[in-house]
Amino acid sequence: MTIAAQVWKTATRLADGREIIYFDEAPGSGRAEVADTREPVLAGDVRAGELRWDPLLGEWVAFAEHRQARIFLPSAGDCPLCPSRPGHSTEIPAAGYDVAVFENRFPALPTGSGRCEVVCFTSDHHASFATLSPRRAATVLAAWADRTAVLGGADGIEHVYCFENRGEEVGVTLHHPHGQVYALPFVPPRTRRYLASAQAHRSRTGHNLFDWLLEAAVADGRRIVARNDHWVAFVPEAAHWPFEVLVFPVRRVPDLAALDDATMSAFPEVYLDVLGRLDRLFGMPMPYMAAWQQAPSGDPAAHAELAVHLQVMSVRRAPGKLKFMASTESGAGVWSNDVLPEAAARALREAG
Amino acid sequence: MTIAAQVWKTATRLADGREIIYFDEAPGSGRAEVADTREPVLAGDVRAGELRWDPLLGEWVAFAEHRQARIFLPSAGDCPLCPSRPGHSTEIPAAGYDVAVFENRFPALPTGSGRCEVVCFTSDHHASFATLSPRRAATVLAAWADRTAVLGGADGIEHVYCFENRGEEVGVTLHHPHGQVYALPFVPPRTRRYLASAQAHRSRTGHNLFDWLLEAAVADGRRIVARNDHWVAFVPEAAHWPFEVLVFPVRRVPDLAALDDATMSAFPEVYLDVLGRLDRLFGMPMPYMAAWQQAPSGDPAAHAELAVHLQVMSVRRAPGKLKFMASTESGAGVWSNDVLPEAAARALREAG
Repeated sequence: MTIAAQVWKTATRLADGREIIYFDEAPGSGRAEVADTREPVLAGDVRAGELRWDPLLGEWVAFAEHRQARIFLPSAGDCPLCPSRPGHSTEIPAAGYDVAVFENRFPALPTGSGRCEVVCFTSDHHASFATLSPRRAATVLAAWADRTAVLGGADGIEHVYCFENRGEEVGVTLHHPHGQVYALPFVPPRTRRYLASAQAHRSRTGHNLFDWLLEAAVADGRRIVARNDHWVAFVPEAAHWPFEVLVFPVRRVPDLAALDDATMSAFPEVYLDVLGRLDRLFGMPMPYMAAWQQAPSGDPAAHAELAVHLQVMSVRRAPGKLKFMASTESGAGVWSNDVLPEAAARALREAG
Repeated sequence: MTIAAQVWKTATRLADGREIIYFDEAPGSGRAEVADTREPVLAGDVRAGELRWDPLLGEWVAFAEHRQARIFLPSAGDCPLCPSRPGHSTEIPAAGYDVAVFENRFPALPTGSGRCEVVCFTSDHHASFATLSPRRAATVLAAWADRTAVLGGADGIEHVYCFENRGEEVGVTLHHPHGQVYALPFVPPRTRRYLASAQAHRSRTGHNLFDWLLEAAVADGRRIVARNDHWVAFVPEAAHWPFEVLVFPVRRVPDLAALDDATMSAFPEVYLDVLGRLDRLFGMPMPYMAAWQQAPSGDPAAHAELAVHLQVMSVRRAPGKLKFMASTESGAGVWSNDVLPEAAARALREAG
């Protein structure tokens, strides 16, 4: 299945100066002419916070007190991610959109230390990523790739992290289908660990760790969930989550911006299939976190070893039962998982 | 306040061979004479699982499929941690107990790879750690110290992890007040990170990292929550959780087994005070994870640098709002916190 992945990009500004970028699937939308008619809130109200260094773990923590005031599970009529309509101006001035990206009014990162963006997948408040058309899924991917390239090239940005939280069970505060982008002023701890592992693997074997991981999953076969010529979705051998799926491009590239058109176009077939299986698994929407793991920006050594892939972490282990990161995970960093990866993959293959 | 911390320890066996250890506050309980009258379940049903190595993160994951079948939020009448009574045999044969420790019937760790124990704090199903008497809190601490010494000296054990999960919000499946002990066949990732940080700090400054951390918190003052002559409870400068409190002994020792009697006896005053403040903060029970961070067993280099302390991670950030480890934390290892540590400490001091 090939998706025409061409998108038309229009960048403009909201009333308070935040950037909004439309990714349209057809030209001539006239997005730049649609103004945000709201009264701007004061900049001091919307950007605050600080980064602090944890000397025990050796990592940064972002503080953002103003986020306590962020909008919490509004009703559909008050959704700030829906298109604007007469009498109800939202974060998106347009009366409809394909994919819209804007700077978060309640960023987790402080002023001058990175940037937080919201990626709205569709005008339809009641959709989910799993119900997007293949064309739309490709547009979302194109938007994430664009943000990786643009933000990754910005001063002071070391890593672009693209992700989606889905479901109140993982802390979602807005139901409208959306993802996020964090442009970080540091390389995140997980990425640093990946790089250390890949470099150690290279030293030990002369090979790339991610190539080896993908080849081993394909050779084993039991943990494969879905695949096509360009992508393979599989449960990792040491999955941390009950239903964790890694979606790898067959040809290794360091980040989303490096995916070629054919690979971009082939993504929706595999990913929408995986998401459909997750929702059918227990006959109810699967709460998940979907994280694009990719190489830090502008680090040739990391680009040579890291492989972009999507990590889908599903938190429902059985109907009515969630996986919690309790003391074992949170206090010791030790994971226990009640679902064997081979059984998880089999269950997902059977949820056809 | 000094608590008589003397305990009387009796180790015996349950019907299926699992060990149960009573820690009594008075002698002459006759625990060894109380038999478990249940039919033993087959060992094959109760111990299974495996450890698998995650090559990307460089850490072990424990798989335990049988835990899917573990008892899930039973009613008080069916509680397996209450004392046995006529017609209802529980995991604890005695008709009443002070503190009882037994091998978990549903261990997260596989056979031959460590050991999982349950630590019951009281016969009273409706109590919590916060409502224990100081005497009882000291007995629980003595039990954890005993398990640290005994299990830490066992073959194949590299680390003893003592902890409590409190509240359904952090995944508790049994409401009866209890903690746990994991005797691990490896050093947990968090402990390895602490050790690396401490060794780097020593190389850089010539000093101990934990001594510096505690001295800085005391000198700053704003993040102190409670203290006495032997213990200091404070919010760390880069707290990861909305209301995170570290409880440090004033005199650094590597693990619970190394605490002296005076320090053990002084612990309840500070810790019960902290827990009471957490429960009063929002006028409802605070869901938390309490993790004893300590040095790995039998590692002199780690014993020289690591400092035992209790890390209390509270997950409620406001009434009706929880902190989630969503994609930012779970996928990138990047933490964002909506509550500034100085504000958290002030709120806890005011919840007097």
